[in-house]
Amino acid sequence: MSTVDTVDVADLDAELGSLLTGSLTTDPDILATFSRDESLYSPDGTPLALVRAHSVDDVVTTMRFAHAHGIPVVPQGARSGISGGANAVDGCILLSVKSMDRILAVDEENKTVTVEPGIINLDLKKALRSYGLAYPPDPGSVAMCSIGGNIATNAGGMCCVKYGVTREYVREITVVLADGTLTRLGHRTVKGVAGLDLAGLFTGSEGTLGVIVEATLKLVPLGPDPLSALATFPSVKAAVQTVAAYMATGATPSLLEMMDAKTIGMVNALGDFGLDESVGAVLIMQSDSTTAAADTEAFAAVATDNGAHDVAFADNAQDSEMLVAARRSAQPAWEHYAQAHGGGQLLDDVCIPRSAMAEFCDRVDAISDSTGAMVAVIAHAGDGNMHPSVFFDTADGASVARAQDAFDQIMALGLELGGTITGEHGVGNLKSEWLARELDEGNRRLHRSLKDAVDPTGILNPGKMLEHL
Amino acid sequence: MSTVDTVDVADLDAELGSLLTGSLTTDPDILATFSRDESLYSPDGTPLALVRAHSVDDVVTTMRFAHAHGIPVVPQGARSGISGGANAVDGCILLSVKSMDRILAVDEENKTVTVEPGIINLDLKKALRSYGLAYPPDPGSVAMCSIGGNIATNAGGMCCVKYGVTREYVREITVVLADGTLTRLGHRTVKGVAGLDLAGLFTGSEGTLGVIVEATLKLVPLGPDPLSALATFPSVKAAVQTVAAYMATGATPSLLEMMDAKTIGMVNALGDFGLDESVGAVLIMQSDSTTAAADTEAFAAVATDNGAHDVAFADNAQDSEMLVAARRSAQPAWEHYAQAHGGGQLLDDVCIPRSAMAEFCDRVDAISDSTGAMVAVIAHAGDGNMHPSVFFDTADGASVARAQDAFDQIMALGLELGGTITGEHGVGNLKSEWLARELDEGNRRLHRSLKDAVDPTGILNPGKMLEHL
Repeated sequence: MSTVDTVDVADLDAELGSLLTGSLTTDPDILATFSRDESLYSPDGTPLALVRAHSVDDVVTTMRFAHAHGIPVVPQGARSGISGGANAVDGCILLSVKSMDRILAVDEENKTVTVEPGIINLDLKKALRSYGLAYPPDPGSVAMCSIGGNIATNAGGMCCVKYGVTREYVREITVVLADGTLTRLGHRTVKGVAGLDLAGLFTGSEGTLGVIVEATLKLVPLGPDPLSALATFPSVKAAVQTVAAYMATGATPSLLEMMDAKTIGMVNALGDFGLDESVGAVLIMQSDSTTAAADTEAFAAVATDNGAHDVAFADNAQDSEMLVAARRSAQPAWEHYAQAHGGGQLLDDVCIPRSAMAEFCDRVDAISDSTGAMVAVIAHAGDGNMHPSVFFDTADGASVARAQDAFDQIMALGLELGGTITGEHGVGNLKSEWLARELDEGNRRLHRSLKDAVDPTGILNPGKMLEHL
Repeated sequence: MSTVDTVDVADLDAELGSLLTGSLTTDPDILATFSRDESLYSPDGTPLALVRAHSVDDVVTTMRFAHAHGIPVVPQGARSGISGGANAVDGCILLSVKSMDRILAVDEENKTVTVEPGIINLDLKKALRSYGLAYPPDPGSVAMCSIGGNIATNAGGMCCVKYGVTREYVREITVVLADGTLTRLGHRTVKGVAGLDLAGLFTGSEGTLGVIVEATLKLVPLGPDPLSALATFPSVKAAVQTVAAYMATGATPSLLEMMDAKTIGMVNALGDFGLDESVGAVLIMQSDSTTAAADTEAFAAVATDNGAHDVAFADNAQDSEMLVAARRSAQPAWEHYAQAHGGGQLLDDVCIPRSAMAEFCDRVDAISDSTGAMVAVIAHAGDGNMHPSVFFDTADGASVARAQDAFDQIMALGLELGGTITGEHGVGNLKSEWLARELDEGNRRLHRSLKDAVDPTGILNPGKMLEHL
């Protein structure tokens, strides 16, 4: 680690603020509003300043200044993350690229788009529609998350079962390194093996290796409106068997989500969804292919063969969106439930082999029973990406402890079943100790060596993903 | 770089050979046969020894020994590469993992297979058929190349237009690092963002970061037999326009290949394919979806709209394979032509934006005219991955120089058009100087830093991909 200079506000303005097209702020009230992402119960610190970059040059200037003075830098996009990855650390510069939100070029023939990092995912999707093109990755926070943050966390979402994760759409990125060096990584072409895959290395690096200032992304043709089906099952086991049997047919649903009985009840309590609360689980499936109607019927047949009580079809886009809306309301429904039950919610994000989903859900129930912590589960079932949500009373220390215990036991269970502690939400500072448990010693050493090589003074997002390796 | 000890043959046997389950050889005749891959005109050196590893322990033992003595190690699979990446360097240990060729586990429900690195790609494909599963990546050398080598080079092939490259199938790899440390990178689950994407970093690293000793790969359900169509065009331009128009429909062909007029003539000269030699180009398209028959008709309609002379359909698997056989025979046909015209052939591998293919082909013709070197072109047209082949007389120094000039001008053209010097064949020692031209200074510095971090004594495959950065 470098030595941190003492920098006073006058120096900051003279040496950094006055050089920026964007702005530099040291107002404590403003700093406070920028000091956290959307995660709960993650630690944060007190920043030195906030830079709102308006250009690549602003990012270069900020990194040069920070590097020269040994000041930590926390890159920020829309701060919609939920692992604490964008939280302030003491004495840091918060470097926000949210205002750098332009679409720089749409290449229709090669189906790529070049953007600045601050553009909101949904805004990009909307802008591409008029070109007949689509950018598939759709994190739950699609309406508020930025593309730069999506790349920095290799974001997932509900469409991954067909379209894969953000990494598969990143062709080329321009990054500013710790010392202010500007460099272009990856390639714009469909294929390319010239050198190490550094665009891939920086994707998902959570701000620890560099600041993403531009990206060229792969697009796909905008498909037809999707159609959906919702199947109810007597048990999670029957739902999970359906997932296995359906995926074994070679099906390519654009969404395949599971909700457990507890979540179904909470969703009904939030909105007028009319879901049957007597069931053990529901699966919601969507197809956006040209054979969508046949796809939903094929899904229904497999569900029925595997013991589904009932399958509801949506034969038009509007009804289809209503079926999926039940799933989209799960997180708001959880928050609604939490607010009525002590306010606390810890959302987990374990990805396991699909074949282990039934055992996982059984054992989460057992963890809930043994700890006394209420746990509800939804899943990107086609990917085995489980989102158990642990509820607790924030005013009750024992309840908080039980919830933390359950949360930890769920991650341990994920590892035991051959899975990972995070399928899509990232490590941040919430799971950095658990990352050290997941990786073997050789892998931890590689991480440390690579971080030292790319950011030798350790100023980029310290205390986060790589902290405990 | 480390200091290289002087190690005599007796020491080698005592300190290394005697510890191996596999074998250690210093016989110069055997070493000579293992000193090159399939590339032409690439430099090679004189190895110290060949280790044929039979186990992970053999690889660990070899790397520990080499690390302790500062001896370079060149990892080898099937040596089917064509960029010199597996060629010997002076005083090295050739570390062959070809005998480590077992399938360790097929996980049908999660659709993964775990293999040793030496297994031949086609043997893996055949073994998976009985499970109803497929491993899509299909380099031209599919019948002789190993999965470990495919991962080390991030191999491509003809199916990439639908299925992507090797990287998209690598879930988890076990590697032996330069000092003999064994570590597991990546994750077996569909999704996973715990830590940096080190499995991705090692994929395509061409033996410069570690030795791959095990891999867990994503599989897909075995699809129906594919159907094909072959369209003839008056010009490369018409063929390229067809590719653009067809891909814009959102089509997902499993193969979309172009051959130019020169190659068509050479293919006819090799075998009895009966291709119309008066045309300017052909496109061969294949679909392996359940709607294959409709797909070939949709392709034919687009081709006709874009000026195709004629479209031939194959309505069964056998006829379909015959159409594709013409494309598969391009490389043998080129070799046949080369042998009758001085024996020399340099195969290039430039990937460019699809939109630049017509200009690329025009300017390759101009390069051919200005240098006097004969150049024929085939392309993985759906990906913009161009394979110009430069022919020359190996006994005529002026002819060799013209060919090298043309080869270099083609790479420069690829870069000028926004492409890369290698879409799938890799850098090796054939293109390591060109890699330095493609990457900017920040990117080159990152490469150097990362290599130093992972292999601080520089023993892993020196003189290859990273040599000139």
